[in-house]
Amino acid sequence: MRKVLMLILDGLGDRPCRGLGWLTPLQAAEIPSLDLMASKGLTGLLHPVDVGVPPGSDTGHLSIFGYDVVREYPGRGVLEALGEGVDLGQGVAFRANFATVKQVNGKLVVIDRRAGRISGEDAEELAKEIEEMDLLNGEVKAEFRHTLEHRGFLVLRGEGLHPEVTDADPHEVGYPVIEPQPLVSRAEKTAKALSEFLREAYMRLKDHEVNRRRESEGKPPANIVLPRGGSSKVSLESFQDRWGFRPAAVAAGPLYKGVARALGFDVYHPPGATGLPDSDFDAKVSKAIDLLEEYDFVFVHVKGTDTASHKRDPELKKRVIERVDLALERLVDPPEDLLIVVTGDHSTPSELGKHTGDPVPILFYGKGLRRDDVPNFDEMSVILGALGHLKGRDVMPLVLNLSDRALEYGLRPTSKALRYVPKASDLKPFRV
Amino acid sequence: MRKVLMLILDGLGDRPCRGLGWLTPLQAAEIPSLDLMASKGLTGLLHPVDVGVPPGSDTGHLSIFGYDVVREYPGRGVLEALGEGVDLGQGVAFRANFATVKQVNGKLVVIDRRAGRISGEDAEELAKEIEEMDLLNGEVKAEFRHTLEHRGFLVLRGEGLHPEVTDADPHEVGYPVIEPQPLVSRAEKTAKALSEFLREAYMRLKDHEVNRRRESEGKPPANIVLPRGGSSKVSLESFQDRWGFRPAAVAAGPLYKGVARALGFDVYHPPGATGLPDSDFDAKVSKAIDLLEEYDFVFVHVKGTDTASHKRDPELKKRVIERVDLALERLVDPPEDLLIVVTGDHSTPSELGKHTGDPVPILFYGKGLRRDDVPNFDEMSVILGALGHLKGRDVMPLVLNLSDRALEYGLRPTSKALRYVPKASDLKPFRV
Repeated sequence: MRKVLMLILDGLGDRPCRGLGWLTPLQAAEIPSLDLMASKGLTGLLHPVDVGVPPGSDTGHLSIFGYDVVREYPGRGVLEALGEGVDLGQGVAFRANFATVKQVNGKLVVIDRRAGRISGEDAEELAKEIEEMDLLNGEVKAEFRHTLEHRGFLVLRGEGLHPEVTDADPHEVGYPVIEPQPLVSRAEKTAKALSEFLREAYMRLKDHEVNRRRESEGKPPANIVLPRGGSSKVSLESFQDRWGFRPAAVAAGPLYKGVARALGFDVYHPPGATGLPDSDFDAKVSKAIDLLEEYDFVFVHVKGTDTASHKRDPELKKRVIERVDLALERLVDPPEDLLIVVTGDHSTPSELGKHTGDPVPILFYGKGLRRDDVPNFDEMSVILGALGHLKGRDVMPLVLNLSDRALEYGLRPTSKALRYVPKASDLKPFRV
Repeated sequence: MRKVLMLILDGLGDRPCRGLGWLTPLQAAEIPSLDLMASKGLTGLLHPVDVGVPPGSDTGHLSIFGYDVVREYPGRGVLEALGEGVDLGQGVAFRANFATVKQVNGKLVVIDRRAGRISGEDAEELAKEIEEMDLLNGEVKAEFRHTLEHRGFLVLRGEGLHPEVTDADPHEVGYPVIEPQPLVSRAEKTAKALSEFLREAYMRLKDHEVNRRRESEGKPPANIVLPRGGSSKVSLESFQDRWGFRPAAVAAGPLYKGVARALGFDVYHPPGATGLPDSDFDAKVSKAIDLLEEYDFVFVHVKGTDTASHKRDPELKKRVIERVDLALERLVDPPEDLLIVVTGDHSTPSELGKHTGDPVPILFYGKGLRRDDVPNFDEMSVILGALGHLKGRDVMPLVLNLSDRALEYGLRPTSKALRYVPKASDLKPFRV
């Protein structure tokens, strides 16, 4: 049985970029380590959720980890909160980004969904203005927490809250902020509280001195936060119960820590890992290799590829990929008991700047496995790979199979054995 | 966001034809426009319903348009009636072709399921003989309408009718016409009425002077019509509600107009479009380009490829494909905001003369999208395409994705947003 190192490069897939001579960043990048793994490994195209469906980063990861996002998706907010170690209790949580709006006839039209990717002290100071709020005459308490760059999350606490409300975020610039609407009648109070939060946040932020200064510097003001992805406390089957691995995650971005915690991974954030394009990928890969002593499944997340894509900077994405490749050099001759999996959670074409349903390349690499004739790791080369087209739900069965852990279909020492080989210690011995 | 032009060539797929040097009509045809689109686009093989399943033209189209033909198929008759603008009300409808039968020991053995592809005045005159009929002592009124060539449909109106009866059409020559049987007990009256209709139609047609003349000319007489595909009034979710497009159809064949109307398309029939191999494809493509000003999804149907296949004329099918290709010349350098999709609704091998479950080639073409290395648009070349093997249900998600309309999975501005990006006008703006 092999241990598994799974590297997920966020938003890895792309489309041909004008600025890169109509190559994708992966095609344009110098990536000798990944190319070597592709040439000696098994490759294919992965549809993380389904054909043509653009995954969110949370749903993309959940699907790759073998969770059915139609039945099991808990919503974004709770995953963000978990990423920061916040216990929701009976509250509801929302992902909530700083954004820039412009008031037009009483509507707030979204100018920039990320307020110029505000970060650092500006974001911290503005976050303080709205970090606590009493809503509906004190019946509901709001708590806003800033995380990374323009990102944050909002928790509402109080009696009778329910997460099924519409997103305030219209998800496209040029459209007005949406009035929160209950999607089920039990969510009426939540929608009202959220509406009051929006109004109050806009009032507190629009004339804030930080925003006045940003405007004088030609930067977009962060004059609102836009809640989306309402959700309540999660109870997903753990990754260990489902697949039999003892899992660890190496990640810096809050959402990815949240996804990992929701599935029962132990989460590590090594020094130098920033969740940004400048992250120390060497530190992350080193940490992962160390963790493989103690764990048998280590997930490494790289956010920089997606951040570069959302910044519409194909050249930066290419450089991030090249720096990751450099950090992988020590894995091109892996131990015999290691299976390496490299893929993305979705495509983010870097001249479009948003997630698409284009498939991402995936490779499985380990000694003694089959290999195909694909010499390069990129979106086009892997079309001819041995794995063909995979869905997210195919990945964990492949991981079990190629790590020699999958049990013959039809055998059933426990009811869960269709999913993994139980260790002897999991089973009750027969006694005479 | 792009607009979409979807061209469906009916029965496009084929098998190698002896008469074409063992090439398929698509392989044999000179199609510079389609080849150029394939070489710069994304290609694959489409199973319109499922692997190995021969679709009907109605189910093939419905599946490609994103409707589940297992759960949502309304039956053929109602689609034919809708194609002619006939409101069924509480009635039931059947597709009903003119056919040739021979009386053998009291059975009516089918000699030709299309009565020599009867058309024109012969068909019109015979149709008049059976266009109205009182059945079951006046309790049920029958209305037969001739449409294109040998085709027509039958509507039964009256109390207590139900469409779930067996087809009278045996679907193969050499077999006897089938006695209509109720498939559910509520359909007993319908089966009885249909049985009386069959008997009466045969009586009125068998010695008709038109048929006597046809026989003297060595043509098969149209001495019966064979009802099949019983169905009642349709209530499918509209294409616009399901996918967010404002759709139009350019079609001449009644069934395709019916499918489009059932899904809420506005239907256009330009002058010169005949639904036959001689149709003016240039007029259809021109109309489609005009409609793209007003609509954001335009479906163009070409029937001639299927008609040539059923006539077992691969050479004619090749010529139809070449004439369609000529009409596509003006689209090889499309506007940046246009996605072009070309495929078929099923294969009709033209030396076999009937629908098969062989997959059909599909291509997506638009500027800035990924492309694969496939240089030709035909059944064999696209095997190495980037799209791999698709099912009908994958097509609309791909259309949404490649027209940049798909929303990230997990986002939820409205309950329908998992399927398309709602327009701002669908949502209530927040007001300060």
